[in-house]
Amino acid sequence: MAFRAPIKVCFSDIDNAGIVYYPRFIHYFHLAMEEFFSSVMGIDYSAVLHERNLACPTVRVECDFKRRMKYGDRIDMEVRIINIGRTSITWGYCGRLHGNEDVIVVEGSNVTVCTSVDTFEKMDVPLWLREGLTRYMNSF
Amino acid sequence: MAFRAPIKVCFSDIDNAGIVYYPRFIHYFHLAMEEFFSSVMGIDYSAVLHERNLACPTVRVECDFKRRMKYGDRIDMEVRIINIGRTSITWGYCGRLHGNEDVIVVEGSNVTVCTSVDTFEKMDVPLWLREGLTRYMNSF
Amino acid sequence: MAFRAPIKVCFSDIDNAGIVYYPRFIHYFHLAMEEFFSSVMGIDYSAVLHERNLACPTVRVECDFKRRMKYGDRIDMEVRIINIGRTSITWGYCGRLHGNEDVIVVEGSNVTVCTSVDTFEKMDVPLWLREGLTRYMNSF
Amino acid sequence: MAFRAPIKVCFSDIDNAGIVYYPRFIHYFHLAMEEFFSSVMGIDYSAVLHERNLACPTVRVECDFKRRMKYGDRIDMEVRIINIGRTSITWGYCGRLHGNEDVIVVEGSNVTVCTSVDTFEKMDVPLWLREGLTRYMNSF
Repeated sequence: MAFRAPIKVCFSDIDNAGIVYYPRFIHYFHLAMEEFFSSVMGIDYSAVLHERNLACPTVRVECDFKRRMKYGDRIDMEVRIINIGRTSITWGYCGRLHGNEDVIVVEGSNVTVCTSVDTFEKMDVPLWLREGLTRYMNSF
Repeated sequence: MAFRAPIKVCFSDIDNAGIVYYPRFIHYFHLAMEEFFSSVMGIDYSAVLHERNLACPTVRVECDFKRRMKYGDRIDMEVRIINIGRTSITWGYCGRLHGNEDVIVVEGSNVTVCTSVDTFEKMDVPLWLREGLTRYMNSF
Repeated sequence: MAFRAPIKVCFSDIDNAGIVYYPRFIHYFHLAMEEFFSSVMGIDYSAVLHERNLACPTVRVECDFKRRMKYGDRIDMEVRIINIGRTSITWGYCGRLHGNEDVIVVEGSNVTVCTSVDTFEKMDVPLWLREGLTRYMNSF
Repeated sequence: MAFRAPIKVCFSDIDNAGIVYYPRFIHYFHLAMEEFFSSVMGIDYSAVLHERNLACPTVRVECDFKRRMKYGDRIDMEVRIINIGRTSITWGYCGRLHGNEDVIVVEGSNVTVCTSVDTFEKMDVPLWLREGLTRYMNSF
């Protein structure tokens, strides 16, 4: 089964239409990616940045919003690895309503490019990350 | 010329990699849409919500991030209308580096669906909005 | 022992000085209050708002920031009830470094006023809330 | 007259009670301080950070919220210098309702400490800043 990060819609995520402000879902994608590093890769994203000198800035995102979400709702955000290129990783996200997993709330993907934290220069996906992600892709 | 909303990258938009947190660009799209209503449609989006009872939640977004942005950078965010459907509007955004308009920073689009603020039910694009957007589409 | 809400400093909480953007600590206070309702009062703050028609807007906050926090740090945010007035509640917060509880990261308080969600009019602290908070105050 | 930064309450500043999320007012204080540097000190806060290697993290804030604010409201945020110590600066903020300046929306202050961006060590308020702030204090 894909990794799922639990997300709680908090009071301040709500906009003046009474539902989750849509850019917050993209923030949820990032939170889920951070959790993915900690839980699946066994390294906090903060350590990826500051110890391994690797950042994963996003160069493309797309997202379908399928259900309006209210304060107090909970999302289980699935994270998948769609593709590993030479320097880029394509991540897939599928947010399911907590407690009713057939209800898909949000679905999307983003492409990140491996870059040096210091120079911002593009670099190849490091071996430790490629191996970890590949193992994860093959595990379900 | 397309409408352009001036956006300033502020201190808190920056993430721990030292550049704009990528979901903030989607927030910038929303800020630009809000400015578009005030400047081009002649009605604040707050009045659209609370006086005309119309909300425009997003059902899809896609975005390419073409240049990392730092604190203090400024973006001129172009807003275009790509399509007006029966109930939906497709908006296009092109963020240009302020002072160097050939440099495209971010480019994307979203689809909003007209809904009632009270019931969240889908409704046809109201005539006043359709006419205003059409006039704008034909003006350049 | 006072209730403690676990808070994780996330990637986007960091500002361009490389530390937690200070208004985010006030957001952490709110997150901790939300958790307090769920865990201690036995009711989600979303239900307080939407079922009991009660909001607790803040009329005053004060806060001392005692330690800069970085991405990946964790805070255990203690919540205390300092005072229950006729219409107001004074909340105390003490953020301790997770794993090293003698290190106080942030300390502050805010005053909330009970108001009707519909009319925004001030109301007396409802009995269920007064009793729950009093029980909590006497429990340690 | 004190410097005033214009602030627009935007769609996403609103919380699930339909008013400005109270930590956002503290963010408004920061935005006003950023504008103060650009407009009054003649240097962007980004240049203060990255060219002069000076950061002004906050060690204390206090704030009274006097009026609930809704989407579309505008605030003129006055910035005053209350005190200049050896290493610290005390800033005062008074948010007035745009178009009705006698209505005070929010009032507060924070204390910032001059620190090196690189080492995070405390430093004396640099002369250029002390002189600029003093000139400003004496100008009205």
